[in-house]
Amino acid sequence: MKEAKGIGHCKVGEPVDQYLLIKSSVKGVASNGKPFLTLILQDKTGDIEAKLWDASPEDEESFDAQQIIKVTGDVNSYRGRNQLRIKTIRLATEMDQVKVGDFVESAPLEVDDIMEKITQYVFEMRNPRIQRITRHLIKKHQNDFLTFPAATKNHHEFVSGLSYHVVSMLDLAKSLATLYPSLDTDLLYGGIILHDLGKVVELSGSVAASYTKEGKLLGHISIMVNEIGQAAKDLEIDGEEVTLLQHMILSHHGKAEWGSPKPPMIREAEMLHMIDNIDAKMNMLDRALDKVEPGEFTDRVFALDNRSFYKPNTPATVQKEPANP
Amino acid sequence: MKEAKGIGHCKVGEPVDQYLLIKSSVKGVASNGKPFLTLILQDKTGDIEAKLWDASPEDEESFDAQQIIKVTGDVNSYRGRNQLRIKTIRLATEMDQVKVGDFVESAPLEVDDIMEKITQYVFEMRNPRIQRITRHLIKKHQNDFLTFPAATKNHHEFVSGLSYHVVSMLDLAKSLATLYPSLDTDLLYGGIILHDLGKVVELSGSVAASYTKEGKLLGHISIMVNEIGQAAKDLEIDGEEVTLLQHMILSHHGKAEWGSPKPPMIREAEMLHMIDNIDAKMNMLDRALDKVEPGEFTDRVFALDNRSFYKPNTPATVQKEPANP
Amino acid sequence: MKEAKGIGHCKVGEPVDQYLLIKSSVKGVASNGKPFLTLILQDKTGDIEAKLWDASPEDEESFDAQQIIKVTGDVNSYRGRNQLRIKTIRLATEMDQVKVGDFVESAPLEVDDIMEKITQYVFEMRNPRIQRITRHLIKKHQNDFLTFPAATKNHHEFVSGLSYHVVSMLDLAKSLATLYPSLDTDLLYGGIILHDLGKVVELSGSVAASYTKEGKLLGHISIMVNEIGQAAKDLEIDGEEVTLLQHMILSHHGKAEWGSPKPPMIREAEMLHMIDNIDAKMNMLDRALDKVEPGEFTDRVFALDNRSFYKPNTPATVQKEPANP
Amino acid sequence: MKEAKGIGHCKVGEPVDQYLLIKSSVKGVASNGKPFLTLILQDKTGDIEAKLWDASPEDEESFDAQQIIKVTGDVNSYRGRNQLRIKTIRLATEMDQVKVGDFVESAPLEVDDIMEKITQYVFEMRNPRIQRITRHLIKKHQNDFLTFPAATKNHHEFVSGLSYHVVSMLDLAKSLATLYPSLDTDLLYGGIILHDLGKVVELSGSVAASYTKEGKLLGHISIMVNEIGQAAKDLEIDGEEVTLLQHMILSHHGKAEWGSPKPPMIREAEMLHMIDNIDAKMNMLDRALDKVEPGEFTDRVFALDNRSFYKPNTPATVQKEPANP
Amino acid sequence: MKEAKGIGHCKVGEPVDQYLLIKSSVKGVASNGKPFLTLILQDKTGDIEAKLWDASPEDEESFDAQQIIKVTGDVNSYRGRNQLRIKTIRLATEMDQVKVGDFVESAPLEVDDIMEKITQYVFEMRNPRIQRITRHLIKKHQNDFLTFPAATKNHHEFVSGLSYHVVSMLDLAKSLATLYPSLDTDLLYGGIILHDLGKVVELSGSVAASYTKEGKLLGHISIMVNEIGQAAKDLEIDGEEVTLLQHMILSHHGKAEWGSPKPPMIREAEMLHMIDNIDAKMNMLDRALDKVEPGEFTDRVFALDNRSFYKPNTPATVQKEPANP
Amino acid sequence: MKEAKGIGHCKVGEPVDQYLLIKSSVKGVASNGKPFLTLILQDKTGDIEAKLWDASPEDEESFDAQQIIKVTGDVNSYRGRNQLRIKTIRLATEMDQVKVGDFVESAPLEVDDIMEKITQYVFEMRNPRIQRITRHLIKKHQNDFLTFPAATKNHHEFVSGLSYHVVSMLDLAKSLATLYPSLDTDLLYGGIILHDLGKVVELSGSVAASYTKEGKLLGHISIMVNEIGQAAKDLEIDGEEVTLLQHMILSHHGKAEWGSPKPPMIREAEMLHMIDNIDAKMNMLDRALDKVEPGEFTDRVFALDNRSFYKPNTPATVQKEPANP
Repeated sequence: MKEAKGIGHCKVGEPVDQYLLIKSSVKGVASNGKPFLTLILQDKTGDIEAKLWDASPEDEESFDAQQIIKVTGDVNSYRGRNQLRIKTIRLATEMDQVKVGDFVESAPLEVDDIMEKITQYVFEMRNPRIQRITRHLIKKHQNDFLTFPAATKNHHEFVSGLSYHVVSMLDLAKSLATLYPSLDTDLLYGGIILHDLGKVVELSGSVAASYTKEGKLLGHISIMVNEIGQAAKDLEIDGEEVTLLQHMILSHHGKAEWGSPKPPMIREAEMLHMIDNIDAKMNMLDRALDKVEPGEFTDRVFALDNRSFYKPNTPATVQKEPANP
Repeated sequence: MKEAKGIGHCKVGEPVDQYLLIKSSVKGVASNGKPFLTLILQDKTGDIEAKLWDASPEDEESFDAQQIIKVTGDVNSYRGRNQLRIKTIRLATEMDQVKVGDFVESAPLEVDDIMEKITQYVFEMRNPRIQRITRHLIKKHQNDFLTFPAATKNHHEFVSGLSYHVVSMLDLAKSLATLYPSLDTDLLYGGIILHDLGKVVELSGSVAASYTKEGKLLGHISIMVNEIGQAAKDLEIDGEEVTLLQHMILSHHGKAEWGSPKPPMIREAEMLHMIDNIDAKMNMLDRALDKVEPGEFTDRVFALDNRSFYKPNTPATVQKEPANP
Repeated sequence: MKEAKGIGHCKVGEPVDQYLLIKSSVKGVASNGKPFLTLILQDKTGDIEAKLWDASPEDEESFDAQQIIKVTGDVNSYRGRNQLRIKTIRLATEMDQVKVGDFVESAPLEVDDIMEKITQYVFEMRNPRIQRITRHLIKKHQNDFLTFPAATKNHHEFVSGLSYHVVSMLDLAKSLATLYPSLDTDLLYGGIILHDLGKVVELSGSVAASYTKEGKLLGHISIMVNEIGQAAKDLEIDGEEVTLLQHMILSHHGKAEWGSPKPPMIREAEMLHMIDNIDAKMNMLDRALDKVEPGEFTDRVFALDNRSFYKPNTPATVQKEPANP
Repeated sequence: MKEAKGIGHCKVGEPVDQYLLIKSSVKGVASNGKPFLTLILQDKTGDIEAKLWDASPEDEESFDAQQIIKVTGDVNSYRGRNQLRIKTIRLATEMDQVKVGDFVESAPLEVDDIMEKITQYVFEMRNPRIQRITRHLIKKHQNDFLTFPAATKNHHEFVSGLSYHVVSMLDLAKSLATLYPSLDTDLLYGGIILHDLGKVVELSGSVAASYTKEGKLLGHISIMVNEIGQAAKDLEIDGEEVTLLQHMILSHHGKAEWGSPKPPMIREAEMLHMIDNIDAKMNMLDRALDKVEPGEFTDRVFALDNRSFYKPNTPATVQKEPANP
Repeated sequence: MKEAKGIGHCKVGEPVDQYLLIKSSVKGVASNGKPFLTLILQDKTGDIEAKLWDASPEDEESFDAQQIIKVTGDVNSYRGRNQLRIKTIRLATEMDQVKVGDFVESAPLEVDDIMEKITQYVFEMRNPRIQRITRHLIKKHQNDFLTFPAATKNHHEFVSGLSYHVVSMLDLAKSLATLYPSLDTDLLYGGIILHDLGKVVELSGSVAASYTKEGKLLGHISIMVNEIGQAAKDLEIDGEEVTLLQHMILSHHGKAEWGSPKPPMIREAEMLHMIDNIDAKMNMLDRALDKVEPGEFTDRVFALDNRSFYKPNTPATVQKEPANP
Repeated sequence: MKEAKGIGHCKVGEPVDQYLLIKSSVKGVASNGKPFLTLILQDKTGDIEAKLWDASPEDEESFDAQQIIKVTGDVNSYRGRNQLRIKTIRLATEMDQVKVGDFVESAPLEVDDIMEKITQYVFEMRNPRIQRITRHLIKKHQNDFLTFPAATKNHHEFVSGLSYHVVSMLDLAKSLATLYPSLDTDLLYGGIILHDLGKVVELSGSVAASYTKEGKLLGHISIMVNEIGQAAKDLEIDGEEVTLLQHMILSHHGKAEWGSPKPPMIREAEMLHMIDNIDAKMNMLDRALDKVEPGEFTDRVFALDNRSFYKPNTPATVQKEPANP
C-alpha cells in the first residue's frame, strides 16, 4: 500500500486506499438537513476534494486540518473536477508510522545542502560590507529561511521553497556573470540571498502559509529594506553598499505596478529582477508541463498570463531523412 | 526702485530696472562664433530668460547661479515666451543691501508659527507611542523640516513649503475628524507630520533643490519607513502603532503605480491620502488661477492632468433680479 | 422576540426566530424533481439566503418579494456563505404589527432635519441666480430627493441616502471653504445639492431601486445638466452661472472614463469631485469596519479597489510608559 | 499670376510671387535687438511660415491675421520645414480683387446643394416626432450649420466641413440600411444630422475656429443633448423618440474615454458611431495620400494613431500575364 | 410533432416532446453515489442543459455527443438558467428520418449561392495577380471555406458562417467603393475573401469547431499570410501585390493588442478592418435584439464590450400629430 | 593625428583635428539669407553636430552623407548639446588612406569567428529537421546575416550586430540549458538563430539602416515565419518541428502589444523571449554605463523605460574592517 498511486495522478473511476493529509475541513449542511464535511486531502502529488456525508459531531472534531487519515473510496468527477467518494475513513495512529512531512512537497535539495551552497556563495564575496550584512541577516532568520516556501501559490510554494529558489538563482547568476563580466557578483549574490528574505515575516510558516498582519500592511519588500538598514546600524557599517543593497531589494519586482516603488537603477538590480523572473517561470512551466503528455496542452496557468502551454511531441533525435538542401 | 514690478508680472515691451537672482547660467556659442550666457533670472513673482551676448570669460565667472545682479533692459517675446533683453548688468554689492531670501518665494507663515502649530498638534495626541515617535523624528530633522520645499516643482515648491503643507493638512484633518468621528486623530496627525519628512533626505536643500543619490535609489517613502522603524527601536517602543505609522507613510501615494507599494488599508491611511491630494491640488489651483483675470482660462497645468482652468466672472453678489419661479 | 438579533449578525449554528422581509424569491427544481424557492430575506442589519424545499404552488404565490414573513430555523454554512435552514415560515399579518420600513435601512437623520439643513445652505447663498435654480430644482423633485438612495449599491444605498449624502457633503464643503477661502461657496453648495439629483430620474424608487430606461440611456449626469438648462429657461435666468452649474454636474465624476465627458475645469468643480469622493469612501469604510472587531481585516470591498481594511487594535490611550527620547 | 502654384505645393528653392492670407502674425525680437514678425501665410493648398525681419511698428499693425498680402520671395528649408524668405510684401488692395474666401479651403459641394440633400433626407423620415425635432434644430442653426467646419483640425476642418460631413454620412447610412434592413433610418438620419450640430456653439466661427467658453466647459455633445430636450419641449413632443435621439448624440463617440458618458445602447447608435468613424477616417486618409506619389509613405497622421500610410504602386490593370494556376 | 417549439424558445414550465441533438455529454456522480449524465441538447433555436439521473453504463455509451435523441420532459429553472427535466429519452433511429443538419444553424444563403456571389466578385477584379492568387486559394480550400463557421462563438458561428460573412462584407465593400472612389476594389475584394480563410486550418471543422494545434500556435492570420506567399511562389507571381495582400491579412484586426502585428497602413487595409467590424457587430446585434421584445433590454453581450442593448418601442410611423413648429 | 581623441569623448572647449564620416547633411538658410549645412559627423565613439555657414553650391555637393572629411575646429555647447564649430574642412582623398569602416562601430568579434561559433551550435543539433531548416536559412542569407545590425537604434545597432547578438544569446542558452535540463536545445538554438533573421529583409543594409517597404508592411517576424514555411517546403520537411519553429519566431516579442500575435506557448519560446531580453538589456546597460564615471547617473535610456542608471562607486574589495557581528 505504500506504493499507492499519488492522489494527484488518480483518474476518474480508480479506487483509492491510502494515507492522506487533511489540508482543510469545512462544515456544511446538506439538502436533507444533515451536516457534512468538505475535506481537501493531499499528498506530495496533489490534492482532491472529498465530501464526508452525515458527519457526526465527533467526525467534525476528528477530521480537522493537519490530521493524517487512512481513507478508501473511488474517484468521481463533479462539475469537471475530480472528487473522492469516501467509503471508509479513520485517523492515522502512531502505529501507522506516517508523519506530516510525508505528505507535503519539499525542495529537491536537502536543507543542509542548500545551506552549504549559500554559505559558499557568501564566502566568495570580496566586499566585506556586503558580506557581513548578508551573513548577519541569514544568521538572524536562518531557520525560517531554510524551511519557508517562496510563496503561498504559483511558484516554489513548498517546504524550503524560499531557500531552494535562492540557490537556483545564485547558480544562474554565476553563469550570467561569466557571460556579462561587468556584473558585480557581490552585489548580485547579496541581492539574490536577501531579495525575498522578508517573506519569513510576511508569511505565517513553512506549511499552509498565510499572510501575517505585518505582511499585509508592509509587505516583504519594505520589511527587508528596513532590516538591512537595521543590520547596517547594528554592525556599524556605513557606505554606499547599504543603499545599494536596499535599492536592489526595493526594485526587484521591476515596476511600481508590480510592487517596487523604484524601478531597477543599477545593472545588478536589473539582472536580479530578470533572474528572479526566469527561475520562477521555469519552475511554473516545468510543473505545469510535467502533468501532461507530449502532444497535449496544459491547463491555463494563471500566473503566466493565463496561458496554456504545449508539450512538443518531437523526438529529440529524428530518424535520419534523406538530406538534400 | 525697490517698488519695481515683480518680474513675473512684466509684460512684453515694458522696461526693467531691478535686482534679480540668477537661478541658472549656461554658456553657449552664437552663430557668429562668440560665446554668450543664457541666464534664468528670478524674484519672488516668477522668472525670465535673458541672453548675455558676447560674454567675456569674466562675465562667465561672475554671472553664475545664486548670484544677485542689478539689471536694466526690456521684455521681449521669443517663440511665445517672455525674454529679457539686457541693456546693462552688474553684480549686486554689499552696498545694495539685498539678500537671496528677498528673491525666493517662501511659505505665507513664519517658521516659528509653523513650528508652534505642529507642536500643538503633537501635544494633542493621546497615544504616547505615536506621540513619542513623531516628536523624536521632528526633533531629529527639525531644521530641514522647517525650511525644505515640499517638492521640486508642482506644489509647495518654496522655502518652508514642506512644513507649511503639513500645517494645512493638519488643520484639514482636524475639520474632517469632527465630521467623521470614527477617525483616530493620533494616527492621522502622526501620519500627516511624517508623510513627506523623508524629503529632507531625498532632496538636496531648501533652495533650488535637486534629488540626492539616496533620494533617487530609495525615495522619500522608503527612507521614512526605515526611520520610523529605527526610531521605534531607539525609543524601545513596541506595538502595532509602529507598523501602522509605517503603513501610513508607505501607502500615502494611494496606489502602486503612484509609488506606494501597498494601498491604504486602514481608514486613516485612506484619509491621509485624500487630505494630501486636496491640499496639493488647492495649492496648485490657487497659484494657477491667481495669474489670470476673471473670464480667462489658465495655462495648462501639467500636474493636474494637463488641464486648463477657468476663472469664473460671476459677481459674488448679483444685482437682485425680479424673482418669479 | 422584538429584541431578536439582526440577521446580519447571526453566526453559523445559531437559531433564528424573527420577522424578515423577502427581498427576492426565485423558483427552482431540486434533483428529486420537486420545486423549491430560493429566498433572500433581509432586515436592517443585512440579508441571508434560505431554501424553502418542496414548495407548493401556494407557497410560490405567498412568499413573494416585498412580503414580510415570520420564520424559525437555524443558520448553516453553504459554500462558505451563511444560509438559513427554514423550520417554520408564515406570512406576517396585520396583527403582527410590522411594516416594510422596519426592515429597510435608512439614513441616520430624519427627513425633516435633512430638509431643514439643506434649506439653510440654500438660504446662505448670495448669488440669486444660483440660489433660484437650486431652489427650483429641489422643489420640483423634493419628495424623491428626500427618500431616494444615493446608489443601488456601494455607498448610501439606503432610504434617504441621496439627501443624507448631500447634507454630509455640504457640511464638509463649509469646513473646507474656511480653510481655502478662494472657494466660491455659492457654486460649491449649488453643485453639491444638484450633483446627483438626476438619480431621482435614473433610479426607479426609494426601495430596491433599479435603473430606469432613461437612466440607462442617458444617465443621471446628462439628465440633470438638461434640467438645469430647462430651469434656467423657465426662470428666465441668463448668465455664466447656468453654464458653470451645468459644468459642475457634468464633471463631478472627475474623468471621462468615470463618466464625466469633461473633467473639472473650475476650482469648485474639482473640489466637488473630491468632497463626493471623501464622503462616499468614508461611508463605505465605516460600514465595512463596523462589521469586524479590532485586530481583524474586513472582507474585500469591491468599490474600494477590492481592498481589505484593517481595524487597528490600538487603545486610544495607552498606559503611560517611561518617556525618555 | 492667378495661375501661381499653390503654396502647399512649392518646393525648396522655388520662387514665390502671389497673394496669400495671413493666418497668424506674432512679434519677436531678433538677436540683434530688432523686432520681427513670424507670419503664417496660407492659401487653399496649405500654409508656410515666413519671417519679416526689421519690422517697423507700421508693419506690425498692417500685417495682422486675416489680412491678404501680395508677397515675393523664395522657399527655404529651416529645421526640416519649409520657410518662405520674403523679398517684398504689401497688403492687397481692393484693386487686387482678391477675397478671404479665395484662400480658404471649403467643401467640394456648394452650400445650396448640401442643404438640398439634407432636406431630402429629412423629408424621407416617416416618424413625425424625429422629423420635427430634426427640422426644428436645423432651422434654428441653419446658417452656422452650413458654414462651420466639422473640427478645428484632423478632418473636415474647412468651410462647410460640418454639413458636408453630414451629407457623406447620410449617403453612407442609406447604403448600409439596404444591407442591414433592421436599421431604423429615421433614427439613423436624425442622429447623423444632429450628432455634431452642437459644434456651432462649441466653436467660434466658420474660419480659423477656436473653442468657446461654453464649448470648453460643456462640449458639443452635452450642448446638443440639451437642445434636443429643449426642442422637444418647445414642440410639445413627448415619447421615447426624444430619449433615443439624445442617447444617439450622447453615445456617438463610442466610449467614455472618448467623451461619450454612455456607450451606444441601441443598434442605430452603434451604427452612427461607425459611420462617423468611416467618414472621418476616409477624409483623413484621402488628404494624406493625395500629398504623396505612388510608392511613397505619407507623413505620420496623428489622428490615425500616428500611423504612416503607403500609397500602392500597383497599376489598376496589370498587363495580362500567362495564366496557368 | 415536427412543429414542436424550438428548444431555445421554451419557457419554464412548458412540456417538451421532440428530437434534439446531443451537443455534449459529461458523466458525474450524484450525492447518492450514483452516476448521472449532464447533457447539452440543441436544435437550431438554441440549447438547454439536462440531467440524466441514474445513468447506466449503456446510457453513457448511447447518449454521446453528436447523437440525435427523442426526449420528453419539461422545462425547469435551476440557478437562473433553464434546465430540461427528462421524463423519457431514446436514440433516434433511421425511421425517425432526422439528420444532424436539421439541428444545426446555418447561413441564410445556400452554399451554391454563396459560391456564385464570390465567383462574381473575383471575376470583377482587373488586376490579374490579385485575381489569380485569390482564385487559387479559394480553389485550394473551397469545401471548407464554404462550410466552416466564421468563429467558435460571438458572430457567424454557424455552418457556412465564414463564407456568408465574406459575402456580406463584399456587398458592403461594393457600396463603400461607390461613395469613396479612391478605394482599389481589387485589393479590397481580395483582402475580404482571404482575410479569415486561415480559419479552415485554425479550426477543426464545420460543426462544434475547436482550435487545432496549428491554430493555437500560429493563428489564422499567420497561416494565411504564409499561404499567400506560397501561392505567389507556386503561381510564379512577383510584385507588390503579394506584399499588399499579405499586409491586408496581417493588419485586419487593426491593432497589435487585437492580434495584428502591424496596423493597417494602406487605405484598403483600414477599410477592410472597418468592414469586418461592421458586419460582425451587426450580426451580433441582430441576434441579440431578435431575442427580446420592443421596449426591453437584451442580456449583456460579452463580445460587444459587455453592453446590454435596448430595442426601441417606437412605431416606424407614428400617428400624424398636429405639426406646428 | 591618428591618435586623435574619439569625437564621442571630446569635451566643450577642446580643439578638434581629425577625420570624420558625414552621417547626414541637410541644407538650411540662415537669418542673413545665406545657405548653410547642418552636418552630423561620426566616428566609432559617437557623433556630433556641426554647422557649415555660408555654404557654396560646391560645398553642398561635396559634403554629402557617407563622405569622409578632414576637419579642424573646436567643441562648443548649444542648447545643452555639444556642437563642433568648424574652422577648416575638406574631403578626404585616397592619399589620406581612411575608409568608411574606420568610422563605423562594429561587433567586438570578427565575422569569421561569429560564423564559426554559429556553425558549431548548428552542428550540435540532433534533430535533423530543425538542423536542416536552420542551416538552409543561414546559407540563404549568410552575407547579410553576418553584417547587418540587430536594430536601427537601441541595442546592437552596429555592423554585425545581428549575428553577434545571436552568438551571445546562444552562449546564454547553453548555460541555461545546463541549469534547466528540461529545455530542448535544438528548438532553442534554432529559434535563437532565426528569431531576428527577418531583419535582413526588414532593414535596408548594414550601415545607416532604414526600414524597407516590406519591413514596414510585414515586419521581420512575419517575413521569417514565411521563410521557414518556404524552407520546409523546399526541403520537403514535414512535421511538428516546422510549426514549432514558426511559433518561436512568432512569439519571441512575448506579447501582442509588443508585436507577437501569439504569446510564447512552449517552454523554449518563453526562454527565447527572456534570453533576447537579457542580452538586449545588458548591451544597452553596458553602453550607457560606459559613458559615465563611478558615482554618476547615466542619461535617461529611452528603450529601458526612460530610466537613468547609477554606476556604483564601491570598491570591489574594501579595506578589511574589524569584523564583529
